[in-house]
Amino acid sequence: MQPVKPVKIKKDMKVSELVDALKETGFNARKLGEASEILVEMIKDKECKIFLGLAGAMVPAGMKSIILDLLDYTYIFVSTGANLTHDLIEALGHKHYKGDEKANDEELHKQGIDRIYDIFMKQDVYKDLEKFFEKHWQQLEKCTNIKELLWKIGKLVDNDCILKKCFEKKIPIFCPAIADSGIGLMIWSKKAAGKKIIIDAFEDMKEIIDFAWQAKKKGVIYIGGGVPKNFIQQSMQFSTPASYGIQISTDKEEYGGSSGAKLKEGISWGKMSEKGKFISIISDATIILPLLVASAFDKI
Amino acid sequence: MQPVKPVKIKKDMKVSELVDALKETGFNARKLGEASEILVEMIKDKECKIFLGLAGAMVPAGMKSIILDLLDYTYIFVSTGANLTHDLIEALGHKHYKGDEKANDEELHKQGIDRIYDIFMKQDVYKDLEKFFEKHWQQLEKCTNIKELLWKIGKLVDNDCILKKCFEKKIPIFCPAIADSGIGLMIWSKKAAGKKIIIDAFEDMKEIIDFAWQAKKKGVIYIGGGVPKNFIQQSMQFSTPASYGIQISTDKEEYGGSSGAKLKEGISWGKMSEKGKFISIISDATIILPLLVASAFDKI
Amino acid sequence: MQPVKPVKIKKDMKVSELVDALKETGFNARKLGEASEILVEMIKDKECKIFLGLAGAMVPAGMKSIILDLLDYTYIFVSTGANLTHDLIEALGHKHYKGDEKANDEELHKQGIDRIYDIFMKQDVYKDLEKFFEKHWQQLEKCTNIKELLWKIGKLVDNDCILKKCFEKKIPIFCPAIADSGIGLMIWSKKAAGKKIIIDAFEDMKEIIDFAWQAKKKGVIYIGGGVPKNFIQQSMQFSTPASYGIQISTDKEEYGGSSGAKLKEGISWGKMSEKGKFISIISDATIILPLLVASAFDKI
Amino acid sequence: MQPVKPVKIKKDMKVSELVDALKETGFNARKLGEASEILVEMIKDKECKIFLGLAGAMVPAGMKSIILDLLDYTYIFVSTGANLTHDLIEALGHKHYKGDEKANDEELHKQGIDRIYDIFMKQDVYKDLEKFFEKHWQQLEKCTNIKELLWKIGKLVDNDCILKKCFEKKIPIFCPAIADSGIGLMIWSKKAAGKKIIIDAFEDMKEIIDFAWQAKKKGVIYIGGGVPKNFIQQSMQFSTPASYGIQISTDKEEYGGSSGAKLKEGISWGKMSEKGKFISIISDATIILPLLVASAFDKI
Repeated sequence: MQPVKPVKIKKDMKVSELVDALKETGFNARKLGEASEILVEMIKDKECKIFLGLAGAMVPAGMKSIILDLLDYTYIFVSTGANLTHDLIEALGHKHYKGDEKANDEELHKQGIDRIYDIFMKQDVYKDLEKFFEKHWQQLEKCTNIKELLWKIGKLVDNDCILKKCFEKKIPIFCPAIADSGIGLMIWSKKAAGKKIIIDAFEDMKEIIDFAWQAKKKGVIYIGGGVPKNFIQQSMQFSTPASYGIQISTDKEEYGGSSGAKLKEGISWGKMSEKGKFISIISDATIILPLLVASAFDKI
Repeated sequence: MQPVKPVKIKKDMKVSELVDALKETGFNARKLGEASEILVEMIKDKECKIFLGLAGAMVPAGMKSIILDLLDYTYIFVSTGANLTHDLIEALGHKHYKGDEKANDEELHKQGIDRIYDIFMKQDVYKDLEKFFEKHWQQLEKCTNIKELLWKIGKLVDNDCILKKCFEKKIPIFCPAIADSGIGLMIWSKKAAGKKIIIDAFEDMKEIIDFAWQAKKKGVIYIGGGVPKNFIQQSMQFSTPASYGIQISTDKEEYGGSSGAKLKEGISWGKMSEKGKFISIISDATIILPLLVASAFDKI
Repeated sequence: MQPVKPVKIKKDMKVSELVDALKETGFNARKLGEASEILVEMIKDKECKIFLGLAGAMVPAGMKSIILDLLDYTYIFVSTGANLTHDLIEALGHKHYKGDEKANDEELHKQGIDRIYDIFMKQDVYKDLEKFFEKHWQQLEKCTNIKELLWKIGKLVDNDCILKKCFEKKIPIFCPAIADSGIGLMIWSKKAAGKKIIIDAFEDMKEIIDFAWQAKKKGVIYIGGGVPKNFIQQSMQFSTPASYGIQISTDKEEYGGSSGAKLKEGISWGKMSEKGKFISIISDATIILPLLVASAFDKI
Repeated sequence: MQPVKPVKIKKDMKVSELVDALKETGFNARKLGEASEILVEMIKDKECKIFLGLAGAMVPAGMKSIILDLLDYTYIFVSTGANLTHDLIEALGHKHYKGDEKANDEELHKQGIDRIYDIFMKQDVYKDLEKFFEKHWQQLEKCTNIKELLWKIGKLVDNDCILKKCFEKKIPIFCPAIADSGIGLMIWSKKAAGKKIIIDAFEDMKEIIDFAWQAKKKGVIYIGGGVPKNFIQQSMQFSTPASYGIQISTDKEEYGGSSGAKLKEGISWGKMSEKGKFISIISDATIILPLLVASAFDKI
């Protein structure tokens, strides 16, 4: 048995030093330390292909740059539509604002401000989204699957963003529930106006499962649960199990849903390898993710 | 100010009596009592159309009959793919089993058993799913959108189930992330085998927003969050706000995601009416949902 | 393997019928069903002595009558000081009120109203508490330990309440952190005014451990965690382990504290028997407790 | 409105740089950034006296050194008995060990190992605790209140620890529920063996409220909730409200208990000042506390 070593704080302590120290403690702190170690190992393992799943309002919450960093090591990226929409909104020149969770929602509505807990966004972002889709419709309407559509948006947008990076680095980006997002709404409004576009809902599956088959060794990183986690997990189930796994979620296994299920549960399904290295941290990704990335990046 | 009235338990107490009594207490208990009242009001309001969103592993957890009951009052139903897949699996004659959350996952994997927290399912259900899709492929391949596909499955399956009821009662059933489910996998395997089928990812949106426009007055019921909640919420944003709302979710607003956002937040977005009646209960739907339905059904 | 049986809701369903049905489902619902069964077994087992721990603002939230019911089967009762203070406040004729969690706290302060989430209490309750202690000081100052003090208060108060029932039924009532409560404040104000009273902080321990030794078989019921749970658990550790256990807590084991630790963890400490029957439900006691008691009381 | 600034990770990033950056984001991350700022302000404010409340198994989890650091700025320290017992155990030469939350508890029990989630402790620590109390009984038995007892233990123990530091720095240390701990058990066993010791349960109150009256300006830091938080809060209620506050707790306000109540609620009670600066972070202290302290210590 290894003794717990109390964490000693020092002046000018680096994130990586602190996270290393936490590995020798208990509870979530130790899990964070171990997750950082697994992240480094996953990235250094030349055979390992990383599947990154992103849910929760991470882009509005200021986590975009960190996602961009992680994409440098990502083989397959699966996101909620919301994160991609907010990414595009920022790339079109709009901002998210530091708001107040106790604000009067009726008042905000009158002022045209949408609230995401303590973050505000102006409703007129939708106008610029519409202009973007209007301007580029001829190119967008040719797309026939979701990945293609998202890459095309990434190509067409001027400023750096997640979508653009995925296009430029040719990182497959999947978003099964794209209809459930602002980007989806833009497509809907075009279709409602009589425009033709047919985006097949299942093509993504074929690709992700093919990619999952091709990869010799796989690691999964889940920021939040939801569709991104489940979609990657099912690609493992129908190919080969993953060898590394990090999950950051505030959901709990006792409630039975996929978002809270610990990675270990995936062993029974053949989604995770019996000999794999997994950590499930029950905590808020807006804190855990920056710590994980900052600590890992000192070592790679 | 109304005084809290301590709940008095009596012999043979009915669920509806207990839930009524809880309305006079505090914390989650009061919210449950108020939610029951809102549910009754929503159902009795002839003008109100109910949008039901279902996430979490509710069907495996034995909540199927309750969903079937709720469908009698449902105008639009949005579900995760998983719930529909497990519904179909049961309709094909398979069972979910009472398992143990502490079971050895490696052992389960060897025995071909998938674990969903404390529920087990045999992996060979997939064979019968495949047979079903094989047998009915000619009819299924003609479908061009998700609702049509799900209704068609509901038509083709022999036993009573959620899918069949939606088909028979012509309740529009939407599932934006259908690719992220066992049903999706069946389509994928057909496509992988060279079969042709094109299911448009955005048609659902058109329908749900049209339906949301047509309804004079609307109520939303969210069992869990995820895509079903968000998809319904965005249909409100792009039509008119809902007047009634009940949300049962274990997620918390402080983490910023859509699943945990209180319904009140939707006022800023124009998704919920400023004068609406809303309750967000932070608790496990496997307990809250039966209580809500049992208490409301004594009054309608 | 036993199959999950979907819960069927019927008209006029009794709480006990519903809870029985939940036993055949999954997740928290099943745990509730099993906890009800354990509660019945614990009560029917003539050899079993029940230790009841009460934390959280259960009395303000309207759970007092249920606690009074449970006391009929309780051998040892351990409470936070707050629950006993609020019990005394109600017995002195005051009320708790149904308030609003979104109320303006500055405004409430000006109006002399204390907020407990969505429950309000008038600050002038303290005046009547003071009068009570003033009036009865001569009898109270003779007490030398906490249990004696609490029984004496129970004897002196006119109206029915938890304290009075414990006195009348001679149920030992322990409250290690009595100083941390309104009752404690009353003692403090007397001491601050020069009155003499010495209440030994450790006498309770002697009694509870003696009682724990004498009991052949033991069951524990924890409503919330905190000091009441831990104090009972340590009496088990230093006597013999408990054979039955029910814990209702919103805390999670992953955070490492005693309140969230599952009962199973107590096996390692010798607090819980290896062959015992335990259920830990992660949920809100304001809902779970009424369900448990209502369902069990139909069977005893 | 200030825009959210996405956090940019850089090589060798310091904890304080990262936490500063998080202040410009959303959700818990922003709250952490703001809490760090409040901590620095509270420490730098020469008039402000800091009341530190400690609950949860922080010492076993390796947070002892951080508590020692915080004590340099602490005016009044209130702790659970468990943290002080584990502190004494370590000071007597014992260790806590990195264990496994999935270990077999029956097996651990046979091996004499107590489990605290993923931390192990040998049961024979109790023997050395007993020896310590046996050896020093003559000095300990003279104590008449809890603070005196704890300072005396701090004086008598050889190695550096929380108890020793409180004694040496004359930091008042209160522990209302001392009976609910291993230290309490040692006193109990002496009393059970016929030794005389009378420790008054209410003396602490007198002191803490006096100290709270004397302080011109006050700040509170709550690591977890429980008795330590509530005991400090009531000293504010019966003196003057606190001007600064930081709360780290995994509990939620919706459940109604004191541990989860947001600091803002204290305004209604007169515990917190209407013009105070407060942050309540819903997260695990084993991660938040090291971040807070490391970031603040670069600035003071």
